[in-house]
Order: sequence, then structure tokens, then C-alpha cells
Amino acid sequence: MTQVMTWQEIERRLAGVNVLGAMEEAFDAYSQGLATIPPVGELTFTDPPGDVHIKYGALNHGSHYVVKVASGFYDNPGLGLSSCQGLMLLFDQKTGFPSAILLDEGRLTDIRTGVAGAVAAKVLAPKTVEAIGMLGTGIQARRQLESLVHVTPCRRLIAWGRNPSHVEDYIRDARAMGFEVVAAKEPEEVAAKANLLVTTTPSTKPLLRAAWIRPGTHITAVGADTGEKQELDSRIVQGARVVSDSISQSQARGEVFRARQEGLLNEAELVELGDVVGGRAEGRRTSDEVTVADLTGVAVQDLAIALAVFNGT
Amino acid sequence: MTQVMTWQEIERRLAGVNVLGAMEEAFDAYSQGLATIPPVGELTFTDPPGDVHIKYGALNHGSHYVVKVASGFYDNPGLGLSSCQGLMLLFDQKTGFPSAILLDEGRLTDIRTGVAGAVAAKVLAPKTVEAIGMLGTGIQARRQLESLVHVTPCRRLIAWGRNPSHVEDYIRDARAMGFEVVAAKEPEEVAAKANLLVTTTPSTKPLLRAAWIRPGTHITAVGADTGEKQELDSRIVQGARVVSDSISQSQARGEVFRARQEGLLNEAELVELGDVVGGRAEGRRTSDEVTVADLTGVAVQDLAIALAVFNGT
Repeated sequence: MTQVMTWQEIERRLAGVNVLGAMEEAFDAYSQGLATIPPVGELTFTDPPGDVHIKYGALNHGSHYVVKVASGFYDNPGLGLSSCQGLMLLFDQKTGFPSAILLDEGRLTDIRTGVAGAVAAKVLAPKTVEAIGMLGTGIQARRQLESLVHVTPCRRLIAWGRNPSHVEDYIRDARAMGFEVVAAKEPEEVAAKANLLVTTTPSTKPLLRAAWIRPGTHITAVGADTGEKQELDSRIVQGARVVSDSISQSQARGEVFRARQEGLLNEAELVELGDVVGGRAEGRRTSDEVTVADLTGVAVQDLAIALAVFNGT
Repeated sequence: MTQVMTWQEIERRLAGVNVLGAMEEAFDAYSQGLATIPPVGELTFTDPPGDVHIKYGALNHGSHYVVKVASGFYDNPGLGLSSCQGLMLLFDQKTGFPSAILLDEGRLTDIRTGVAGAVAAKVLAPKTVEAIGMLGTGIQARRQLESLVHVTPCRRLIAWGRNPSHVEDYIRDARAMGFEVVAAKEPEEVAAKANLLVTTTPSTKPLLRAAWIRPGTHITAVGADTGEKQELDSRIVQGARVVSDSISQSQARGEVFRARQEGLLNEAELVELGDVVGGRAEGRRTSDEVTVADLTGVAVQDLAIALAVFNGT
């Protein structure tokens, strides 16, 4: 029998799961070549505007393969619906039987992306995080913060967003999590006051300039998951130790892709997150260097979180 | 609310649906460029052997997009399971919301593939079908026959398969459908006695030779849906009017792909099924020419049958 899980059931099971550990193992296995992750499938709609990503793959000796459908339809909030929709499917890797359908409404993607930020910060953040700087005030800005509290004791937050009422809501939520929060007027102010930056916007133009970044800063760039989106000036990437969640995906999407297109990628400074997590590559080498984690989202993360929910561990 | 339909519910709804008409419309729209159908996603496993196809797409002004996962795990029968497994998903094209999950266990794929054979035979078969010749005796050989009865009055069948007990079962089922059946010892005998041939095997080597094919024969080749599979000697394709369900997919899979690889494809004789259905391209032009329909299976078919079930029309 195929198990169909609603969000209520998924949430109940998540409470008992070590998602951070599962995500570290997933990146580690992926970078060791133990997973098969084909290129992302895409569908794009214009009326109304929406994009769909189909991510799928398997561990080579795993129990299940995953297929995830996740979409962003940006007019949804006007209909009282979340922009993000989607579900995850687990299939038995020995028979193809559909074992589970996780009707997570895109939330497991939000969570695993948030946790990936914490995985990156754990190995790349400066020794002393003075303040966390957040660009964007949406769901992902919340998920990043919820995950970061497990890897840094810092509870100072500088937040910036375009929409004042969203900023207000976000600050209220961050305070409820125990953060001391300052609202920044401009992204430059965030870069000036924080040395662990997280960018979570759907921007297609750079929000952060190289000259603003303090030495020793770590930046997790989460928003740019297509070839069109970009949050960082490519000169930031050019001068940084760059850690990609998937070097193969960064051929076509994300900050690494954009920097390479502009001829500003230093290939010798590009390593994969799972290799850093597994100790096969160096992450941060000095307290002064800038590090960038470019996260475009890999199906191995979807597999890991879906399996954790399915197995309840 | 996402509707989750089991096979029982799907089968009940199918009874009221004109699948042949839906499939003709789907091919017609596809060949007119009214659909977006990205390349097929694939995953391959070796232990046990299995391959997974992810087909997805949408009509440009449609109500829903489809994602279908279909797999063949060829050791399944030993476990009492069908080789084919899978499901279809319909998502609202305006919001991304998952409208329906069709737990069809791969059966809708079998049905739409069978019906595509009838769509092809309707426009390509010789005026008088003397006998239907079937290669292969599995599920698809049954689905093809069930669809063909709606487009030809012929009830003579010449059947060939490798496994004698499967042939026996198949002949019994075909007789129950009203067919007069002869079992052939070799594929050559099928070609000699029938002028509407259907090939439904997973063969990777040609089963039919060009010299065996009678003038005026139509062949629907269904088995070869990857780049490795092949049922027809490419010299058959070379000498025939060739109708592909998807010219773009035939760049990478099916009989057209194999013939092109061998330098034996006559590109001027290649047209698309939906263009023939829609009257924009000629199918059979003379009573003597051999016609080949190369069907690799297109997501627009999955969309059409899933929507027909969902809407109940």
C-alpha cells in the first residue's frame, strides 16, 4: 500500500528526526559519487507566471528513489495560497513501487534548504559570529534562522527586506525565537554589521557588492536556484572561497554559474559542500577570507529528508 | 484538497471516457506546437535491473500540467508484482497545487500506449487488414488488441512470443475477445501472414527483417522506447513511410533513432503522428507502401488520459 501523508502527519514525524545529521550525510554521499542525480527537470509558465522544478535521484545502494515536484507561482498569495507548492514521492528502489506520497505543500523543501544553510555555516562561518545578516524576509529567511540556532550561539540579527510590513512581521518572529534584531535600511548596512550573511530573495540583480563585505565574512546564497537569478555581485564570488552544494548543477544555475558567465569565477577556489563536510576538501582556511556557499538545492537533500520522515528517524 | 485515486476509482471513471478521441486531440495539439514537453527524465538501476522514466509537460493554455513516473523492474514478476509500476500527477497550471494523484500502477500508460497504436492504425493501416500480426505476448500485446478492435473489423490474429506458456495464455485471451488466432513459430511467419503488424517486445535486436515485410503492410513499433531497444531491422525503416509520435524524442530513442544511427533513415519520409491525424502531413500514400509508426510515448498522452480520468469525460 502506498502511504499518503498529509502535512500534519509529516510534521509529527519530523519532530523525532535529526534533519541536520541526515543532510550532512546526504551531501557527503553525494560528493563521494554515491548518488545518481540527473539534471533538474523544468517547466515554465507565463500566464500566470510560475516555474516548476522536478528533482529526482537515488543513492546507488539505497532503499528508495525520490521524485520531487516543487513550484513557485508568484501570484498565489493574492489567492490566499503559498507561492510554493509541491510534493515528494518515494519509490522502492528494488521494484519501483510507490512507497510514499508526502503532501508537504513544499514545506520539506523549505526545511531542507534551511538546514543546508546550517550545514554550510557549521563548516564555513567565522569563529565568532558577531551578527547574522539576513536579506529577504520570507519563509526561507525564517527557515535559515531556525536552523542556524543549532550551529551558532549568536542571537544578533540584522534584517533587510523590500517590503516594510514583511520586515516588521519577520522581526517579530525573529524576536520570538530569542533574537535581538535590528532592521537595516539597505543591504549595505547588513554587510557592515554582520559577518554571517544569508541571502534568500528571488532577485535577478546583485543585492550585495564586493566592497561592502567585511574580511572573514561567510555568505550563504540560497535565493538563486536558476540561471536567471542572482543575489551576489560576481566580484564577491571572484574573491571568495566558494563552496557549491553541487558543482554539476552550478554549470547551469546559481551564483557560481553567473560568476562563470561573467568570467569572474576562480575555478581553483571552487569546492563541493559534501567534500568539505566529509573532510576531503578545505572549507574556510583563514580567519580573513570570505567564504560563499552557493546552494541551488540537490535532489539528494530531498531524498534524505523524505526518507527521514518515511522511516521516522 | 488533493484527490488521491486508486485503480478501482480510475477504472470506474475510464468506462465513461473516449480515450481514442482524447489521444487524437493530444497528438494533434502536440504536433501543432501547442504543448511544452521537455525531454524525458531517466533513472537506471542495476541491482535489481530497473529503469524509470519521468515524463512531464503541459498544453500551453491548459488547465493542468502532468508529471508521470513509470518504471520497469524486470525481476518483479518473481515477486508476484507487475514489472511496470508508477503513477500520474496532475497539478493546477495556475497555482501549482497538486490536484490529483492517480495511483494507476502503470496501467494508464499501458492503456494510452495501446490507444496510440489504434490512432496510428486508423490513419496508416492498409485498406483491408487481412490479419493482425502481434510480436510479444505481454500486457501491451493485449492493450494493442483491445484498441485495434475499435479501428479495424479484422478479427484474425497471428501471434508470436518467445515463451510458449505466455503465448498460450495470450491466445486464450485473444480468443475471448473474438479473435481467430494462429500461433506463429517465428516472426517471419507473422510477417508472411499479416499486413498489420504490432511489435511489443523489449528486444534490443531486430526481430523483423525487411525482406519478410509484404508490400502495403503497416507496422506499429511500440517496444523500443529507449536508445538501446530495437525491434525492426533499420532497412524496414529505410524503405518505409515513417510516422513518429514525437520527432524530437526520436532524436534519442526508438526505431527512428536506431535507423538514423545506422545511416538508414530517409529524413524526407519522416513525419509526425499528430500532423497526420490533423491532416497537415500525409500518412499512407499508396496501397503498396510500407508504413511504420514508431511510438516512444509522449507526455502529452499522459496528460490527455490523466485529464480525461480527472474530468470524467
